[in-house]
Amino acid sequence: MSRRAAYALVDWGTTSFRAWACASDGTVLNERRTPEGLTGVIDGDFAGVLTRHLAAMNVAGDTPAILCGMVGSRTGWVEAAYLSVPTRLDDLANRATPVPSAGRPVHILPGLAQRGDAPDVMRGEETQLLGVVADGFDTGLVCMPGTHSKWVKLDGGAVIGFSTFMTGELFQLLRTGSILRQAVEGAEPPRPDTDGFAEGFARGFRHPAEATNALFQLRAGWLLDGAAPSGQAARLSGLMIGLEFAGATTVHGTGDRMALLASGPIATLYEAAFAAAGLSLARRFDADQCVRHGLLAAAHRLHSDRSPT
Amino acid sequence: MSRRAAYALVDWGTTSFRAWACASDGTVLNERRTPEGLTGVIDGDFAGVLTRHLAAMNVAGDTPAILCGMVGSRTGWVEAAYLSVPTRLDDLANRATPVPSAGRPVHILPGLAQRGDAPDVMRGEETQLLGVVADGFDTGLVCMPGTHSKWVKLDGGAVIGFSTFMTGELFQLLRTGSILRQAVEGAEPPRPDTDGFAEGFARGFRHPAEATNALFQLRAGWLLDGAAPSGQAARLSGLMIGLEFAGATTVHGTGDRMALLASGPIATLYEAAFAAAGLSLARRFDADQCVRHGLLAAAHRLHSDRSPT
Repeated sequence: MSRRAAYALVDWGTTSFRAWACASDGTVLNERRTPEGLTGVIDGDFAGVLTRHLAAMNVAGDTPAILCGMVGSRTGWVEAAYLSVPTRLDDLANRATPVPSAGRPVHILPGLAQRGDAPDVMRGEETQLLGVVADGFDTGLVCMPGTHSKWVKLDGGAVIGFSTFMTGELFQLLRTGSILRQAVEGAEPPRPDTDGFAEGFARGFRHPAEATNALFQLRAGWLLDGAAPSGQAARLSGLMIGLEFAGATTVHGTGDRMALLASGPIATLYEAAFAAAGLSLARRFDADQCVRHGLLAAAHRLHSDRSPT
Repeated sequence: MSRRAAYALVDWGTTSFRAWACASDGTVLNERRTPEGLTGVIDGDFAGVLTRHLAAMNVAGDTPAILCGMVGSRTGWVEAAYLSVPTRLDDLANRATPVPSAGRPVHILPGLAQRGDAPDVMRGEETQLLGVVADGFDTGLVCMPGTHSKWVKLDGGAVIGFSTFMTGELFQLLRTGSILRQAVEGAEPPRPDTDGFAEGFARGFRHPAEATNALFQLRAGWLLDGAAPSGQAARLSGLMIGLEFAGATTVHGTGDRMALLASGPIATLYEAAFAAAGLSLARRFDADQCVRHGLLAAAHRLHSDRSPT
């Protein structure tokens, strides 16, 4: 007979739903990934969607679930108010929002907010960071690439500041909806080991002021010189990431130990970017694993009766 | 009885068609503006569209027409090859492309291309610049704001270099298609005399590396502090224009006499931007008037028999 799950750990974003059934020692007993994010929930029936997925994973009806991500936003299931930075990450569990009438114990972890002159927010990444701390990196600068890349300063397990860059969203907007569309049409996903990526990165990182001129040159180079779409797409990717590095190193400096938290092809692009910027990486973390470890750490704190002895 | 037009002058872009019936001394006898740009031409019947508009303006069937803009692009009527910079602007008429079988004498003026390490192109703006030179500004830096803003260096009536910034297109993409949409929803068009515009401009101009972070802060400020959409839209506009000024002053320096070529609300925004950047404007030109003066100058050169004595 299979082991009974101690917790259901759920990362529920706008366009994705990922769940793990875990034993109390963190062993993954079952796992599920669907594109059924918030946008796929009909008539606000979050309880129904969660129950259906967990039942399909053979998770018992009374097993506690710990959730993070946009499910705790104003447009989600129940709003889990932001914690203001600076804040210790182990406060995430203490400040989790219980969801009433879910049919089982359900908690949603809060996001983080930076108030004041540099307003910023995150939802979901804070739980990955809790996993990073649980995995032994509690002081330094963490780069979390994505649609909205985050650079986060940790000090002794607390988030003391962070900044978000719209890198991935801008790349998609420009690639699919701008006058650059034709110049990058049909291109393979950008690869870091190409001249185009390196050139684009150097341009964005060394000459950030010229970014919107460099963008138009991608079209002009295609028009005048017949530059290949794959090269132009790699240049576009490098340019946007280079611009992010120019900004992040300005905002946060380069004096900290640095860690990269990413999964899949984007991890390879950002490793190349760190090398090109002359920055060394002290640690590399897998984003999926970190969110699971973070949810597990919160679960142990919320349900200490189920923690391994 | 009304005067007979010596020329039909036409600025034919992707999404606009503007035509003037002019006497040989430049007096405007009739004028027409429609959104019927290239995208509105069915089955490539450019001749039909032109004939219909000019007939509606009472222009005789044998009156010569001089055209500029995207109508001379690969996707237009007849391709008018780019002139490579550096080039004298009075060469535009000498190198115009005649359109056969148009039913009347028709010429399309070429665009300009900058080849090499900083590839760039323009179509339509070169004719405005010919008007700027005709109006007495033949040496200095001309700022031409728009969807794709151009900064152009003139020396003795020649274009010696230029750079395009995707300012207007990025503003529209971000305003309507990005996660910033909600933060600027329903906002009035940005005004230069607001704190938001000035703050956004300063951020983009002084700290261009942080541009994509500043973008996300527009959303965070709306989420956390309830910042008003009109203020956020003004900040977005200021930020994009500030980034353009940071780039243009890096590429072209600030040592030249400067001129602004613009029409309508965008002219006011850019005048505020020049002031905020501490740059003085030697001349201001109206974009509509310049393209008409440029087309007229080209018409005189092409049809010297019709020039005023």
